[in-house]
Amino acid sequence: MDGAESLVRTAIACGIKVCFANPGTTEMPLVAAIDRVDGVRPVLGLFEGVCSGAADGYARMTGRPAMTLLHLGPGFANSIANFHNARRARSPVLNVIGDHATWHAAFDAPLTSDILSLARPVSGWIRSVRSAERLAEDTAEAIAAAGTYPGRVATLIVPSNCQWDPAEGPAEPLTLQPPAPVSDEAVELAAEFLQSGARPALFLGGPALQGQALASVARIAEATGCGLVCETFPARVERGPGRPAVARLPYFPEQALEALFQFTSIVIVGARKPVAFFGYPDKSSSLIPTGVKVTRLAEPEQDVAGALEALASLLSAPLSPAAAPYPERPPRPKGPINSATIGAAFAAVAPENCIVMEEGATSGFNFFVHTGGAPTHTYLSLTGGSIGQGLPCATGAAIACPERKVICLQADGGGLYTLQALWTNVRESLDVVTLICNNRRYRILQIELARAGITEPGPKALSLTSLENPEIDWVKLAQGMGTPAVRVDDAEVLARELARTLSEPGPHLIEMRME
Amino acid sequence: MDGAESLVRTAIACGIKVCFANPGTTEMPLVAAIDRVDGVRPVLGLFEGVCSGAADGYARMTGRPAMTLLHLGPGFANSIANFHNARRARSPVLNVIGDHATWHAAFDAPLTSDILSLARPVSGWIRSVRSAERLAEDTAEAIAAAGTYPGRVATLIVPSNCQWDPAEGPAEPLTLQPPAPVSDEAVELAAEFLQSGARPALFLGGPALQGQALASVARIAEATGCGLVCETFPARVERGPGRPAVARLPYFPEQALEALFQFTSIVIVGARKPVAFFGYPDKSSSLIPTGVKVTRLAEPEQDVAGALEALASLLSAPLSPAAAPYPERPPRPKGPINSATIGAAFAAVAPENCIVMEEGATSGFNFFVHTGGAPTHTYLSLTGGSIGQGLPCATGAAIACPERKVICLQADGGGLYTLQALWTNVRESLDVVTLICNNRRYRILQIELARAGITEPGPKALSLTSLENPEIDWVKLAQGMGTPAVRVDDAEVLARELARTLSEPGPHLIEMRME
Repeated sequence: MDGAESLVRTAIACGIKVCFANPGTTEMPLVAAIDRVDGVRPVLGLFEGVCSGAADGYARMTGRPAMTLLHLGPGFANSIANFHNARRARSPVLNVIGDHATWHAAFDAPLTSDILSLARPVSGWIRSVRSAERLAEDTAEAIAAAGTYPGRVATLIVPSNCQWDPAEGPAEPLTLQPPAPVSDEAVELAAEFLQSGARPALFLGGPALQGQALASVARIAEATGCGLVCETFPARVERGPGRPAVARLPYFPEQALEALFQFTSIVIVGARKPVAFFGYPDKSSSLIPTGVKVTRLAEPEQDVAGALEALASLLSAPLSPAAAPYPERPPRPKGPINSATIGAAFAAVAPENCIVMEEGATSGFNFFVHTGGAPTHTYLSLTGGSIGQGLPCATGAAIACPERKVICLQADGGGLYTLQALWTNVRESLDVVTLICNNRRYRILQIELARAGITEPGPKALSLTSLENPEIDWVKLAQGMGTPAVRVDDAEVLARELARTLSEPGPHLIEMRME
Repeated sequence: MDGAESLVRTAIACGIKVCFANPGTTEMPLVAAIDRVDGVRPVLGLFEGVCSGAADGYARMTGRPAMTLLHLGPGFANSIANFHNARRARSPVLNVIGDHATWHAAFDAPLTSDILSLARPVSGWIRSVRSAERLAEDTAEAIAAAGTYPGRVATLIVPSNCQWDPAEGPAEPLTLQPPAPVSDEAVELAAEFLQSGARPALFLGGPALQGQALASVARIAEATGCGLVCETFPARVERGPGRPAVARLPYFPEQALEALFQFTSIVIVGARKPVAFFGYPDKSSSLIPTGVKVTRLAEPEQDVAGALEALASLLSAPLSPAAAPYPERPPRPKGPINSATIGAAFAAVAPENCIVMEEGATSGFNFFVHTGGAPTHTYLSLTGGSIGQGLPCATGAAIACPERKVICLQADGGGLYTLQALWTNVRESLDVVTLICNNRRYRILQIELARAGITEPGPKALSLTSLENPEIDWVKLAQGMGTPAVRVDDAEVLARELARTLSEPGPHLIEMRME
């Protein structure tokens, strides 16, 4: 067995089932090992940002790491933006980067670069392999690091000679450490906050928005009547009938401060303290309004579900809370396509138990507000703010959950970053319906220019925020990647086409012409 | 004046004329300054890899830096692959990355990351700005660093408050140091090598392949009868009648060793010692055959042109060498489209003084061989091996040289990395004809699998090296980006369409269906 095979067999033993890959020459032994060993499904991305984004989506939906296989520093560099988002989502990923043979590195061949320096900023664990004999154990350690709660990108840099040199058999999976429990004092303080303030709230993030943790949130809300707010860009939220209704913190700091100012005390659970996405002149970076008391029940790295359950018990919360009131399913919308009608179309026609990856940017800011009445669904968002995540993350979610429909709400600007994901959707026959918000501009930047006092930008500033001249034809781009596509320009047709494409197998794209 | 304006005015004073940009919120004051100050042409790329690749192409054609304007760590990360190529080309670039306000950084907002760690591997100079007052001087230093011979990527990280805070006026350009001269001993030793060996050769790279340096090469070849070989991936070569015919070192190490083995002594000028692109089991990384004597006239960082002129003088080389014999212009080719007929079509119909950016991968390996008889042209190649450079580099070359036609020979695999450049070509009305080598595979990887002994790869290995299922429709992709496009599948039609599209203004794409 060569080193490459020992890596692949170790990965399989540790539960890795999928490899999102764009390999090169230095990864050929790993490609050969994936080829001859049963157990890992290779999924080709035509650009590395597709691979990292898909691994993120896969991890969010399964809780388990996929493997990525990328080529040297420059190939890996193309994946960094979406690994940045994966890092912010705390998604587990085994990120394997092939490298030059150890003895070749000193020759500074054209593709040589400082991979460690490039990979450190997105890696919660990183190691450069030194020999084939150690590769299996290094792999098991990397996978354990990736999967240790709450999850991280573990980067393993594997020189090509460590792939082709002989190795012993695979290594055994390592036992994962459970998450650290929160202290009794933190639970008691949280209970006190929720019971003493006039208008208390839970501020939720990370693991608090799904599964057993979210069930405890519902109990706590029933017991205390507290408000429920989640971070602006959560990795994953379970929504719909039977789940507690959680408001999303608005994006712009003035609106976020206003939203939190209605509360007297806030208990933070599984999230960071809310901060402004950007700093602005003479504005606070913290989004905690003056006078609002804050405590923290659990860091994202702690046992969030256990802490919420302990809090619910301490509050003597009912084990089966009454179902939160849920709006009726809305009728199909009519009129122009905008944030509201997109949300309404989704709420009206989405199938039970679908997944929504939302990178709608300005067209998605109010998705939460406008999807009242939608059936149960999983919501994924742009955790790290690095645009171009939507399409690949949807691809990975669809690989993870072949029995569920995936809807990708994608702003046009970000969609152009990683449109190659459309091709992978076709190759893998994935049930992904992509909705492109084609407003032909980086609208957020035009808003930001206005916020900076430039209400009438000149032609050069406009040229840097406009996607016109020429207009992008998304139907043709999709068809170029093998994806059936249509263009719609009113909400009624949008709802009809969304319903139709969701009823058909395989990927589809709907270009939404917006004002 | 705010910091942003002081940066822009300093850049203009230092000769910066173009800014390849994909800005975000943290760069809005710089966008506003570019908008209100005359002198910098903003060119929007719909993905950051377009910006870095275009800045590289611009620098290769003008010898001067353009500015890039990119958004925080993740946005910048998307540009790294093509900055890697720019670094290998020693292209001068002023790379400006906006950052969070200095006081906002500690809040670890979603887009925060370690920009220095990401940018160092591709930056020959790097600085994080600390105040608006210093920004103008920092900018002047960065531009001087970028432009100091032979050129480098100079990265200036500019927090948003350093852009909007008040600043003094712009800074003056700094005086650039001239390149270090080579020693008399190096020149004498080179002359001895060329005069003593039975079959001597010059191995040329970097600045040796253009301008006065190349004219000296012609004189030296005439005086000594030495062979002329250039590095496999030169940044820029001037070719055609009146220029010395230079052979390109083959890509695969066996072929490269064979090519150099015909010489008894080699003088390296402006290049690194030739090394294999990748390490292979039991193969040497050095491409200098055993028994071949080697000396170095000039490092790429030294005064290559001065060294060659001194060598020509020492050899009493004729001031005006007889024109090297040049093959006749070939007829238009017929038959299937392959490496040979692509070269012949180019040689038959290319206009005088065009620019060729060649990222043809396996379809381009023999471009040099098959373009004998072409009129004078400039040849640019994939210096760093990081695919996806061709389209953006052609864009930058066309911005640099609006009076010249640009032909981009682009492999399909790499073309899919940065196809967004096609849109910029339309917006800027650039005379770029893109030839896509559509062989529907990463052919180099299939060759490398075979070289590794895997002559019959299984379905999983094939799936990772194939661009079929579904096939990419490049005509639709191009049209989606606003580019007129046709598909051709024989060489005669290729030559006709190449001639036609070269005779028309603006960008065109020709998808070449190849076996």
